[in-house]
Amino acid sequence: MNVLITGAGGFLGRLLAEALLARDGGRLVLLDREKPAGFDDDPRVEALAGDIASPGVLAAAVTSDIDTVFHLAAVVSGEAEANFDLGMRVNVEGSRLLLEACRHAGRRPRVVFTSSVAVFGPNAENIDASTAVDPRTSYGMEKAVAELLLKDYTRRGFVDGVVLRLPTISVRPGRPNKAASSFASGIIREPLAGVEAVCPVPPETRLWLLSPRAAVANLVHAAGIDLPHADQGRVINLPGITVTVAEMVAALERIAGAEVAARVRWERDKNIEAIVTSWPAQWDTREALRLGFENDENFDALVRGYLAGSPPAKA
Amino acid sequence: MNVLITGAGGFLGRLLAEALLARDGGRLVLLDREKPAGFDDDPRVEALAGDIASPGVLAAAVTSDIDTVFHLAAVVSGEAEANFDLGMRVNVEGSRLLLEACRHAGRRPRVVFTSSVAVFGPNAENIDASTAVDPRTSYGMEKAVAELLLKDYTRRGFVDGVVLRLPTISVRPGRPNKAASSFASGIIREPLAGVEAVCPVPPETRLWLLSPRAAVANLVHAAGIDLPHADQGRVINLPGITVTVAEMVAALERIAGAEVAARVRWERDKNIEAIVTSWPAQWDTREALRLGFENDENFDALVRGYLAGSPPAKA
Repeated sequence: MNVLITGAGGFLGRLLAEALLARDGGRLVLLDREKPAGFDDDPRVEALAGDIASPGVLAAAVTSDIDTVFHLAAVVSGEAEANFDLGMRVNVEGSRLLLEACRHAGRRPRVVFTSSVAVFGPNAENIDASTAVDPRTSYGMEKAVAELLLKDYTRRGFVDGVVLRLPTISVRPGRPNKAASSFASGIIREPLAGVEAVCPVPPETRLWLLSPRAAVANLVHAAGIDLPHADQGRVINLPGITVTVAEMVAALERIAGAEVAARVRWERDKNIEAIVTSWPAQWDTREALRLGFENDENFDALVRGYLAGSPPAKA
Repeated sequence: MNVLITGAGGFLGRLLAEALLARDGGRLVLLDREKPAGFDDDPRVEALAGDIASPGVLAAAVTSDIDTVFHLAAVVSGEAEANFDLGMRVNVEGSRLLLEACRHAGRRPRVVFTSSVAVFGPNAENIDASTAVDPRTSYGMEKAVAELLLKDYTRRGFVDGVVLRLPTISVRPGRPNKAASSFASGIIREPLAGVEAVCPVPPETRLWLLSPRAAVANLVHAAGIDLPHADQGRVINLPGITVTVAEMVAALERIAGAEVAARVRWERDKNIEAIVTSWPAQWDTREALRLGFENDENFDALVRGYLAGSPPAKA
């Protein structure tokens, strides 16, 4: 495989790059606004800096040998809600330019596009392939638009596309970001590091979660999966687990103790609550599991997986 | 009302302009690629020529006094399938630029956007508000994208939008166009004028139709209707009637005689058939009727309505 990853400097992009380098000898082009660091010693890797919505950047990155594209670059939910123009530019126009670059490179690459729970509305339950999108955020609208583009580019034979609708990824290492769901990692990560964390939604709020490990495994799986129909079955609702925020904190207490769990402070933020509670928390995972995509066991496993891969707590 | 109509030189645009001038004393801006003709004597009308996808054209047309916009301009289905770049430019980028112009004019105008049966896939039956879009043509994809944009611009308070999903309009006067559904008027209009018409789909093909009269009445109705929720109920599946092509020709024979109906020649066109049979032919009309939108009685009424408004047959 000769692979391009957009948004390769982000958390998932870096994990994905490492997973691909561990298993394949092809070329790997890593693109992000700032040049993805840490891969200079690997001759298979070309790290590029560029704004995907600027003309020419993607045309230069999608060379004619690229057969697989992971399109992860995006302005996240909270930021797209705060800055409408930026979200439209990156999430819609950037995605369109990527598809155009693939079309004109002429190789019909497999394009794995990460979409989101945010394309759905609050009334959807047991999400399956027939569930109507109903975004209530600009981020969700932009992802839904990019899905439609990808499907039609695939139907026309310009690309060989797959949409993966990702649950909220938890537990992410590192620092908070501008995603409305940032707290879904923060309320576990920060207390484990001895730091107080604010939970901006009520304890009974349900989330739909997937671990970073399973997310990366599913991205890699999507690159190789056989999908016979050009215009059907190209949108896959990934597996995940339904959990309330209260259950998340209870798992933290079971695993790390009451003192750690007490570092979660409950302080509602109406903007974040409005966004997060507009996302459905229960999907029908049967089709994705049948196609070989992975799920996590339960939220305790997500916390233990984070602890196994994260630096020890500083407190 | 001070009104802008895009695509005002088209068949529906002209009918709508005439209907608005008959009932209202406000200003009426008519925009199309070529300057809409025939309105020079009316001081209320400003006719403009311009490409809606060219920067600046819509900003000049959406002046700060415009409170109502009818966005009819579009590249039709057959042409959007044949010329992907043109369809994307007009149907997606043109719609986006219109919404941007409305946003920056600052008046939050009511925007009535004409979408289409083509946003749905062939498996959809009894279409209602919860039916997932599943376009199988580039035209349908582009309309679905513009719907998502309009809904989010409305949610954010940039515009006060309403999407009307129109059935195929029949019987259109005038000449055939590049819509895949052009025959749905042609097989009635041409035989009545003494001319042979080709029907490119099998007799059992079902269509979902609405008369020009009801379409214009519904457009005008949509401009004034009260819609309380910014992010819900903004997409309306208009009423229509389900009819097979065989039933259409039978109606023609009932009304105009066997000799006229015999002018329909059956000659399948696989490209047209693939597009038209991807559209569902049965919708749940209860919600639209509850909101005060109109339907036609049956296909005989559509033919009689055409005859009442059309020049006499030349044969």
